[in-house]
Amino acid sequence: MGYPFVLSDLINYFRKLPGIGEKSAERMALSLLELSLDDVEDFADSMKKCKKELHPCSVCGHITDKDVCDICSSSRRNKNVICILEDYKSVIAFEKAGNYNGVYHVLNGLISPIDDVNPEDINIASLVDRVEKLEKPELIIALKSTIEGETTTLYIKKIFENKNVEISRLSYGIPMGAEIDYLDEITLDRALSDRKKISE
Amino acid sequence: MGYPFVLSDLINYFRKLPGIGEKSAERMALSLLELSLDDVEDFADSMKKCKKELHPCSVCGHITDKDVCDICSSSRRNKNVICILEDYKSVIAFEKAGNYNGVYHVLNGLISPIDDVNPEDINIASLVDRVEKLEKPELIIALKSTIEGETTTLYIKKIFENKNVEISRLSYGIPMGAEIDYLDEITLDRALSDRKKISE
Repeated sequence: MGYPFVLSDLINYFRKLPGIGEKSAERMALSLLELSLDDVEDFADSMKKCKKELHPCSVCGHITDKDVCDICSSSRRNKNVICILEDYKSVIAFEKAGNYNGVYHVLNGLISPIDDVNPEDINIASLVDRVEKLEKPELIIALKSTIEGETTTLYIKKIFENKNVEISRLSYGIPMGAEIDYLDEITLDRALSDRKKISE
Repeated sequence: MGYPFVLSDLINYFRKLPGIGEKSAERMALSLLELSLDDVEDFADSMKKCKKELHPCSVCGHITDKDVCDICSSSRRNKNVICILEDYKSVIAFEKAGNYNGVYHVLNGLISPIDDVNPEDINIASLVDRVEKLEKPELIIALKSTIEGETTTLYIKKIFENKNVEISRLSYGIPMGAEIDYLDEITLDRALSDRKKISE
């Protein structure tokens, strides 16, 4: 009785977004009514446009509205260094960190026999193609440290073994700012075995 | 470099919503990409529809997509009891509480001489019209306890003085679940002076 039907409809859409409960969805829907009609129309059109125009880059698999993404087509990036990631969200995280100058390869998933995800279901074939064309390829594997992440890392390592490809993975260890006593045992174990000498 | 332009556009729109910062806006925009195209189009259309079709009810001022809102046109509501509120958001809050069986009148603002908001700038004339047509009117004033709220309450009280209209206001006091030692002095003062006898 409280809301007109069109409004509760909109509230339900907002609830589909992550981390948005009843109360926040209502607050957002109502605040939308306070924007100008132009703003609301632009907002709505921008949603449709994003969904329609964004697709994977034909080279690396990152989202883009072009055929080849800005990263792959930039002349300032080192095409010989490829960072292998699970999804495009990880690309965004890397780009925000801002210190990486190579390119990416988005697997769009991880090998997971339990969920019936095999190597041919993720973008590994296209990675092999890319690497074959490079003279002095370097791969940086940046996958999460779960069973699926480790399996995929090992699989990729095996493919490029003895093929003159430099392969590394991100270091495991203590995240910045974390309290040592709150860390889980596996992370602590990894941080211990991956410890680095302090250079003087 | 991280996002395609269409995506950062969408993120900026999400940031216009209340309580949404950079990180949440990004998360929402990205999660939108994971909905189906149909869902995104329906979501976007629902936004436009809400903004275009919702307008104030011609009787009470609550938002509705009809000429007269569901509350005003319901035969189960007592039209002789009118609860006076600042905005339609308060109507929604009242309807959620669910125990009120009368109708509403949305002022769409409060009298505030400092901000140059006078009685004729808010929906008081239409309230007088409504009340005049009723046989045994009862008004419940439910405005916030700021200077503007109190001024508006007093103004309305004065209009209907000696006109055989029963007028009350919401009680002030301790909100449910609040710790006494965290309450501000004014609320405590009000709760003390409005204290109720405990009936045995």
